[in-house]
Amino acid sequence: MTDSRTLANAIRALSMDAVQQANSGHPGMPMGMADIAEVLWNRHLRHNPDNPHWWDRDRFVLSNGHGSMLLYSLLHLSGYDLSIDDLRDFRQLHSKTPGHPEFGHTVGVETTTGPLGQGLANAVGMALAEQLLAARYNKDEAELFNHFTYVFAGDGCLMEGVSHEVCSLAGTLNLGKLICFYDDNGISIDGDVKGWFSDDTPARFRAYGWHVIEDVDGHDAEALDRAIQAAQESDQPSLICCKTVIGFGSPAKRGTASSHGAPLGDEEIAATRAELGWEHGAFEIPDDIYTAWNAKQRGASLESDWNQRWDAYQAAHPELAAELSRRMSGELPADWREKTDAYIQQLQDEGPKVATRKASQMALEAMAPLLPELTGGSADLAGSNNTIWSGSKDVATDPAQGNYIYFGVREFGMTALANGLGLHGGFIPYVATFLVFSDYARNAVRMSALLPTQVINVYTHDSIGLGEDGPTHQPIEHLASLRIIPNVSVWRPCDAVETAVAWQDALEQKKAPSVLALTRQGLPPQARDAQQLADVRRGAYVLRREQGDEAQAIIIATGSEVGLAMETAEQLAADNIDVRVVSMPNAEIFAQQDPAYRQQVLPPAVRARVAVEAGISQYWRAWVGDGGAVLGIDSFGASAPASVLMKEYGFTPDNLNQMVRGVIDQQERSA
Amino acid sequence: MTDSRTLANAIRALSMDAVQQANSGHPGMPMGMADIAEVLWNRHLRHNPDNPHWWDRDRFVLSNGHGSMLLYSLLHLSGYDLSIDDLRDFRQLHSKTPGHPEFGHTVGVETTTGPLGQGLANAVGMALAEQLLAARYNKDEAELFNHFTYVFAGDGCLMEGVSHEVCSLAGTLNLGKLICFYDDNGISIDGDVKGWFSDDTPARFRAYGWHVIEDVDGHDAEALDRAIQAAQESDQPSLICCKTVIGFGSPAKRGTASSHGAPLGDEEIAATRAELGWEHGAFEIPDDIYTAWNAKQRGASLESDWNQRWDAYQAAHPELAAELSRRMSGELPADWREKTDAYIQQLQDEGPKVATRKASQMALEAMAPLLPELTGGSADLAGSNNTIWSGSKDVATDPAQGNYIYFGVREFGMTALANGLGLHGGFIPYVATFLVFSDYARNAVRMSALLPTQVINVYTHDSIGLGEDGPTHQPIEHLASLRIIPNVSVWRPCDAVETAVAWQDALEQKKAPSVLALTRQGLPPQARDAQQLADVRRGAYVLRREQGDEAQAIIIATGSEVGLAMETAEQLAADNIDVRVVSMPNAEIFAQQDPAYRQQVLPPAVRARVAVEAGISQYWRAWVGDGGAVLGIDSFGASAPASVLMKEYGFTPDNLNQMVRGVIDQQERSA
Repeated sequence: MTDSRTLANAIRALSMDAVQQANSGHPGMPMGMADIAEVLWNRHLRHNPDNPHWWDRDRFVLSNGHGSMLLYSLLHLSGYDLSIDDLRDFRQLHSKTPGHPEFGHTVGVETTTGPLGQGLANAVGMALAEQLLAARYNKDEAELFNHFTYVFAGDGCLMEGVSHEVCSLAGTLNLGKLICFYDDNGISIDGDVKGWFSDDTPARFRAYGWHVIEDVDGHDAEALDRAIQAAQESDQPSLICCKTVIGFGSPAKRGTASSHGAPLGDEEIAATRAELGWEHGAFEIPDDIYTAWNAKQRGASLESDWNQRWDAYQAAHPELAAELSRRMSGELPADWREKTDAYIQQLQDEGPKVATRKASQMALEAMAPLLPELTGGSADLAGSNNTIWSGSKDVATDPAQGNYIYFGVREFGMTALANGLGLHGGFIPYVATFLVFSDYARNAVRMSALLPTQVINVYTHDSIGLGEDGPTHQPIEHLASLRIIPNVSVWRPCDAVETAVAWQDALEQKKAPSVLALTRQGLPPQARDAQQLADVRRGAYVLRREQGDEAQAIIIATGSEVGLAMETAEQLAADNIDVRVVSMPNAEIFAQQDPAYRQQVLPPAVRARVAVEAGISQYWRAWVGDGGAVLGIDSFGASAPASVLMKEYGFTPDNLNQMVRGVIDQQERSA
Repeated sequence: MTDSRTLANAIRALSMDAVQQANSGHPGMPMGMADIAEVLWNRHLRHNPDNPHWWDRDRFVLSNGHGSMLLYSLLHLSGYDLSIDDLRDFRQLHSKTPGHPEFGHTVGVETTTGPLGQGLANAVGMALAEQLLAARYNKDEAELFNHFTYVFAGDGCLMEGVSHEVCSLAGTLNLGKLICFYDDNGISIDGDVKGWFSDDTPARFRAYGWHVIEDVDGHDAEALDRAIQAAQESDQPSLICCKTVIGFGSPAKRGTASSHGAPLGDEEIAATRAELGWEHGAFEIPDDIYTAWNAKQRGASLESDWNQRWDAYQAAHPELAAELSRRMSGELPADWREKTDAYIQQLQDEGPKVATRKASQMALEAMAPLLPELTGGSADLAGSNNTIWSGSKDVATDPAQGNYIYFGVREFGMTALANGLGLHGGFIPYVATFLVFSDYARNAVRMSALLPTQVINVYTHDSIGLGEDGPTHQPIEHLASLRIIPNVSVWRPCDAVETAVAWQDALEQKKAPSVLALTRQGLPPQARDAQQLADVRRGAYVLRREQGDEAQAIIIATGSEVGLAMETAEQLAADNIDVRVVSMPNAEIFAQQDPAYRQQVLPPAVRARVAVEAGISQYWRAWVGDGGAVLGIDSFGASAPASVLMKEYGFTPDNLNQMVRGVIDQQERSA
């Protein structure tokens, strides 16, 4: 018996057994969506279990990631390298089957999900990737990209605000190959959703310009099959609203929240087996069911057809093929370092005095022509974030050449979409907003870091130096709070040169997101010799060396405060106080340098240290140590012109001068 | 001439003049929405400029807060204590007219806006407050609460995901007295919104169950008047879709993004004056226009009527009146401290061994009966966050007794709504989710702190100790990143007693949000004498005193790691190593204690210090100093049972023991 229901029951059995074995997990969703998954995977999904990296595979995203056993069951049954023992190890340390699906950890998992709504956002990014690659690279005789992005989403995903942001944008961008299955089971953790979620969801999605297929019985394979076919034919993104029963098959728990997030229990599992007519033991799958599920042969055949097209394409369009190969591999062009280093040297020689947000645009202008994969935009702040360069083309109006996304005022959706764009392959995404609104996107930045995937976050207006917009728009704790997310590389450059190095480094970081924190206000250029210039990449370096054998104090500064530090150092020098200035555009990269370099930049003997940054001081106490002081801001900002604010908050040479003298005096007294 | 258009032009003139004077700001929105504001304020808004704190005033929220000059103009013209000189000082340091409206700073400003979408969320909270107070306190003969909440919102607000979250919930909750004016001008900062925002917004809001009034000419006073009347009669929240021209009146810039966020320029201002027929100089308002705008007499009369009702109410319902008075004043009951102290002492005596999330529910059970104003809920994690106590009643089904909000999976909307609930008066809001998903709500937490307003954020599952759900659900940097937001009080209690103290303190903090970071896993109770128990409130205290005159080392611990610290200290004592343990449930409160107390808890002479917390170590380096060490986690978590993870990440007595010995050795070597 390998009818659809029986095949789906294999998912149900594996899911409830694995959750029971782990004594932890979520059986309800896999049991509810098993029939949908079965029809999709066995009748429609174009993939090759033997090559999960095949470029043109359909993408499958489980946005309701707590139902991870659904995905693990699918991967196991269809022939991916995920054994029954792996399933037995569900939720155990170092197993291939963690509590939520993790990209890069389990073969065939396209993205890490669990934080609700973000998988859906990733899927929108993947669908956009497909649209853009198809438009640029497909030829009549050789269609390289023609795949769907399927996503499973539950009530939780659709309640989250990020679902609004990305589904609205998906409608505007006509992402016709995006197909979302809404698991309309009427249940969330707190119970019947009607008490807190009474949207007319089909109407909501039609308002976004989606193609909506309503009232599909999520347990009727033929109805699902028809819905999927209809969705595939739409030019608009499709929402298939599937009426399902959470925990389907469990006589006592189906249709209730009790099946959502806890093992069913041995007794109920036995009752469910009886109800489903599933006569096999725990983790036992009969051969005929394995055979019916196995997608390896079909996958090999699909990929083989595609490989023929790709071979023909390479012969007919060698330059495009080479470009595409490079993009999909994530490699930078061969002349990348040479050209970008030359640009950086040129900036060092010319010394433009510009805001770093402007320097960022200049870096884009210099580097983006080398990188057709560099695709991004701003959350409706293009002119303020300086994210548009002369080669920017709107993806909505010119997909073949498009590299600019007008994200609208959607910081969270933008960032989570960028994660999906990056995960698809073929793109280096960048996004932009004011630094303070990184808050809105914060968990998506964390997800970039956790996945990890490369996203470049351009955050301008990076301090009270933005001026009159006031405390709602002035970041205070943001630099520190981004630095302490593991695997996020935070740059705060002090001039055009450091900005260009930050872009160069961010573009080279394939396994981490970067943050570029940039000023609204103009900043003076700093002089550097060749070694100093080379050391910018090390995160911190001596920008101004003391005159004597040992500095009396070190000023550590970032971004807009480096100029202040240099001015103060000159003032102190006039009074024969001999100070070193360390520019530290990327503290976390510096922390990873070898001890010798770190001690060379910050000699342990010099305990008189002052850190200066127009942000929270707490972060810097660790850097200045017990003998040091921090010139920072530990309250909210205020509305006034930038120069007035900088004075009001103590960012003046006189004040910094006094602080430096203070730490020197203290060291002398304690010596 | 005091027709509607002329009265509206006073707003336009003041707005363009003030932006010009400041050489910074946003004239486009005030000029576009001036007619709407004029009709609303002059024909409908029930308020009293002489008493901006009148309980039953209509609330007015400018969610598109960049249009602050609209609000300042309205406040000035209608008679609030905001002078023409205040308007001249727009965006200057310490002026009453900052770049974005700031609650508590400018009379008549109901909430701080600027971060888009959140003003709308605040308004939903205010409307819910009115609904609940009316249901509980109104009597047939004395209607104490019967006011509208009006909110202005632009495309930016409606693109933001938070608008989805709160508008969906507002529909479910039938907030009929919420009336939103959608400034449908078709323009956002990047230009014509069609390129990135093509929603059918009326259909979207109908899908939420809203009453939608479409295609209202936002410059036609009579049409607006009719729409407002229709909205007032609806039992559902209303969206009035107003077609407007941004920068209305400016011949060259109207209808374009160029009028949005920059001064019009002297020449264009002159042309606009001519176009509008506004013949008065900059900041000049003729007397007849002032007279027509002045709302003081009408306001005094409205409030006087209400005062009569309130007098009668107090006589007829003295107990309810007293309760309501206390609630609106923000005072706690007279016996508050006595009763809650007794509960805390009882816990200390009984010493229950529970997870702190459970202890939090016990605290609710003990304290909430004293506080009918305590109203909150969870983002669909009621059973996990333990936010329901025996007196919880759903506001949706029982508004008169309701004190529990099923927020759905909407962390950001929940928190921003809670800000509005608190701002309205009469409530102490609490909200809940997993600590890791505080990320989703982060800017709303920041707004609580900036306003400030009291919101209690119950964040459970506060470390890798949550176990199998894995890295997507395990907070790492979150405790530190919340502590460094100015004016946020972060508690991480170690047992039931500290949890109760945290709740007690959070309920007493009227001018700041609190975070309670709580465990999923059970924690042992700690013994305390009377002084130790009293000192919990000081943020840190000596939980285990050394035996000798001076400790060889200090272990600083929080939350679930306090038990580990105590166990380790006993282990060390067995080897004659004499260690102090400091429990530090609230580091930022401790930092604010007088130096004598701080040095008593952390004697400067003891440089051998180890901090232990299952989160990012960077924060703690400042606390342990140059001689110290931190047992923290500087990578993402993993999926496994909690006990396995704690061992894997080094949170064992043996490991902590070695670290303590390490810092002692180092001090001895360097001595």
